[in-house]
Amino acid sequence: MRHSSHLTTVALCAAVCFNPAVAAEDTAANEKMLRAIYDAALTTSPAYENLRELTTKYPGRLAGSKNLEGAVLWGEAVLKATGADRTELQPVMVPHWERGAPESVRYFTRQFVSPARLSAVALGGSVPTPEGGLTAPVVELQTLEALQTTDVKGKIVFFNRPMNPAPIVPGAAYGEANDQRSKGPGEAAHYGAVGVLVRSLTHALDDFPHTGNTSYPPDGPRIPAAALSTVAANHLSAALKLDPALTVEMKIHSRWLEEAPSRNVIGELKGSASPEKIIVIGGHLDSWDIAPGAHDDGTGIVQSIEVLRLLQAVGYRPRHTVRAVLFTNEENGLRGGAAYSTAAKARNEIHVLAIETDTGGYQPRGFNLGNPAGNAHLKAARWVKLFEPYGVYYFQAGRGGADVGPLLAHGATVAGLQPDSQRYFDIHHTIEDSFDKVNKRELELGAAALAALVYLVDQYGL
Amino acid sequence: MRHSSHLTTVALCAAVCFNPAVAAEDTAANEKMLRAIYDAALTTSPAYENLRELTTKYPGRLAGSKNLEGAVLWGEAVLKATGADRTELQPVMVPHWERGAPESVRYFTRQFVSPARLSAVALGGSVPTPEGGLTAPVVELQTLEALQTTDVKGKIVFFNRPMNPAPIVPGAAYGEANDQRSKGPGEAAHYGAVGVLVRSLTHALDDFPHTGNTSYPPDGPRIPAAALSTVAANHLSAALKLDPALTVEMKIHSRWLEEAPSRNVIGELKGSASPEKIIVIGGHLDSWDIAPGAHDDGTGIVQSIEVLRLLQAVGYRPRHTVRAVLFTNEENGLRGGAAYSTAAKARNEIHVLAIETDTGGYQPRGFNLGNPAGNAHLKAARWVKLFEPYGVYYFQAGRGGADVGPLLAHGATVAGLQPDSQRYFDIHHTIEDSFDKVNKRELELGAAALAALVYLVDQYGL
Repeated sequence: MRHSSHLTTVALCAAVCFNPAVAAEDTAANEKMLRAIYDAALTTSPAYENLRELTTKYPGRLAGSKNLEGAVLWGEAVLKATGADRTELQPVMVPHWERGAPESVRYFTRQFVSPARLSAVALGGSVPTPEGGLTAPVVELQTLEALQTTDVKGKIVFFNRPMNPAPIVPGAAYGEANDQRSKGPGEAAHYGAVGVLVRSLTHALDDFPHTGNTSYPPDGPRIPAAALSTVAANHLSAALKLDPALTVEMKIHSRWLEEAPSRNVIGELKGSASPEKIIVIGGHLDSWDIAPGAHDDGTGIVQSIEVLRLLQAVGYRPRHTVRAVLFTNEENGLRGGAAYSTAAKARNEIHVLAIETDTGGYQPRGFNLGNPAGNAHLKAARWVKLFEPYGVYYFQAGRGGADVGPLLAHGATVAGLQPDSQRYFDIHHTIEDSFDKVNKRELELGAAALAALVYLVDQYGL
Repeated sequence: MRHSSHLTTVALCAAVCFNPAVAAEDTAANEKMLRAIYDAALTTSPAYENLRELTTKYPGRLAGSKNLEGAVLWGEAVLKATGADRTELQPVMVPHWERGAPESVRYFTRQFVSPARLSAVALGGSVPTPEGGLTAPVVELQTLEALQTTDVKGKIVFFNRPMNPAPIVPGAAYGEANDQRSKGPGEAAHYGAVGVLVRSLTHALDDFPHTGNTSYPPDGPRIPAAALSTVAANHLSAALKLDPALTVEMKIHSRWLEEAPSRNVIGELKGSASPEKIIVIGGHLDSWDIAPGAHDDGTGIVQSIEVLRLLQAVGYRPRHTVRAVLFTNEENGLRGGAAYSTAAKARNEIHVLAIETDTGGYQPRGFNLGNPAGNAHLKAARWVKLFEPYGVYYFQAGRGGADVGPLLAHGATVAGLQPDSQRYFDIHHTIEDSFDKVNKRELELGAAALAALVYLVDQYGL
């Protein structure tokens, strides 16, 4: 499968591959190479079927889980089958939190005889409720600041500030609203609250709750916390207006276990000219426990592997070592990215470029780039015309992503693939982040864009 | 709803609205206006709920159907409620083809005792099979040219050339493969075939057949024709390899009726300075009978209406008359677009610009533009920086779309909104083209892009 059109490959290489040193940029040859990469991605890619396998055999790949370990071995096998010259399992100790039995959130109001159930999931890292559950009155707040002027003692705080619909890039609205989930429970506990409910971080109005990490200050009190679906949040808010004295019952059965062993999975094509210099392309192998982890980040995993296949499929032997890295434990620890960066420094590895793909498998539009001088995106901008026929039209300043970001401090240039993101937060960290939400061609176009940037940097540097 | 933030509106207008003639372009004011348009689209739009209503109350809006007539009256009512100064129902006679009872396609092979069913839909315009159905052996072809060298007499021709996955824009592959559906039955009949099966025009591999129009040469023989799902096409192709003598039974119960009355639905905001000059924004109200018609083209309908709302919501009174046109009968006749153009000429109406939105309600990326001089896209390109923050980054040469295209011959500038199209042909002309496939924000971003272009052309011309 790696050499499905061998004659084409050889003919192409005669034109563009024999480029022994950093050379003047040959636009016609580059156009030809990008077209070959995109052709290979759109006509012969196994990435979509790889994603089907990963997300259906190993859904819910949270740090410490059996499914993450299964995915590690799966990733190593696929990298080998894809023709990696070398694979490596890099040990990483990861946090181990388990949800336990399904949580339940219900409210009791004078208007109903029976309690009404609300769609909810515990936040990652939440402590459990006491034996028999936690029942308390509820106070609805829009901001963490409101804790300073509201009596929340003995109450369940319900953070219900919706994600702002106005920002064009949904990630900006996510960043604005995220404090409710990431810090809300710890802050509310500080003011004497006994539990926290958070409106799911999404623009979508539906009944799927979105989990995600929360963390408590190291020495502060810890209280149980769950996310409500946006429908449930609206419902509870309306119910509170009718009966401010209603009570909510939360049952969360989570537990923290000892740290667990996991691995970053590495596969590489050895560089022909400067094997000691490395170009990384990576995503994260773990996912939230309730999610199949398709867009977050199964697509990044299969795209990273596909880059290795594409370079071979077009007959391109990279000058630098090109490494696919399947990072572990991005979601609730960032241990994989940190361990990779630490090991790279200890080994004195030189990272020319590290690209992350962890924003969904939608059609790519651009890249963010960052380097110590802050000018990497300006340098890459000379290639924008090469990418435009493929719908990739910008290079902007950025810091790559959570897993490759630490390499920036070691002098590497980092980058992040930026696909269309309007649909991403509709399914982010939910059971709906499943294989059927991924479009085969969009996934392949992302892999091709990544391979194209790897090729250009490998040939010409930044 | 039209003036949800009245104070903001007034303040904005003081800054940018009082522009009595074509003026020097004020970039800061334009940036402010575009931001206001996008804010209104993303925070207060009824477009998504309008789409839900249109596609669930009036699915299958084929020319001549009761549901199209219902949609016409619905469209008029929504335009009035949106604040149109004037509405008009423009009479158009349309073809009237009906599918009748559900079609069936089965094959009989020596390997099975019972016939095997294939997912199929009759092509629009197909003649029916004879009473009791049509049963014949099958010959699989890849091209219409192969008819010249193959004995197809008395046989069912099965055109099975897949859409090419390599073109980046799926519409290009659709255009290449489309002859099988649009002309294949007529051509095969000319060579003596008795029926035609066509592989559905899609890159997706699934079991949903895609209908679409076919037309026979005026004086040639007419034979029944149906599309197979891509899964069914692969299945039949494999079965033919095992048993080339298998027979297919087709049952199609379609009929042609007398032409039926329909209407284009027009709603407009009267121009403040040059009311006799018109800017059109339109989509088509009809859909295939089997389809809810969400992306094709319910989204274009509700976006066109939304443009009228957005201009009012930001307090902008257009200098030219801005007209939303809900064209009838795009799918199997193009009569609505033709009638509109003919009437415009008869009334000596001057069309400054006519923009079509009929490529799905996905996130917009650009516009195509055409004018008699062929330079409209180059003139519009001066606005690309204004649009880039919203993900719209190109203006290219084009001819608008099927409904506004005829206005080009009358000297108008025409344009077409170009959204991301990777997912469009997955569901095109199928039962799967339903409301749930539309993302609310993507839909709204399209409406905002349209309103922004209307505003810029209204202020500055092209």
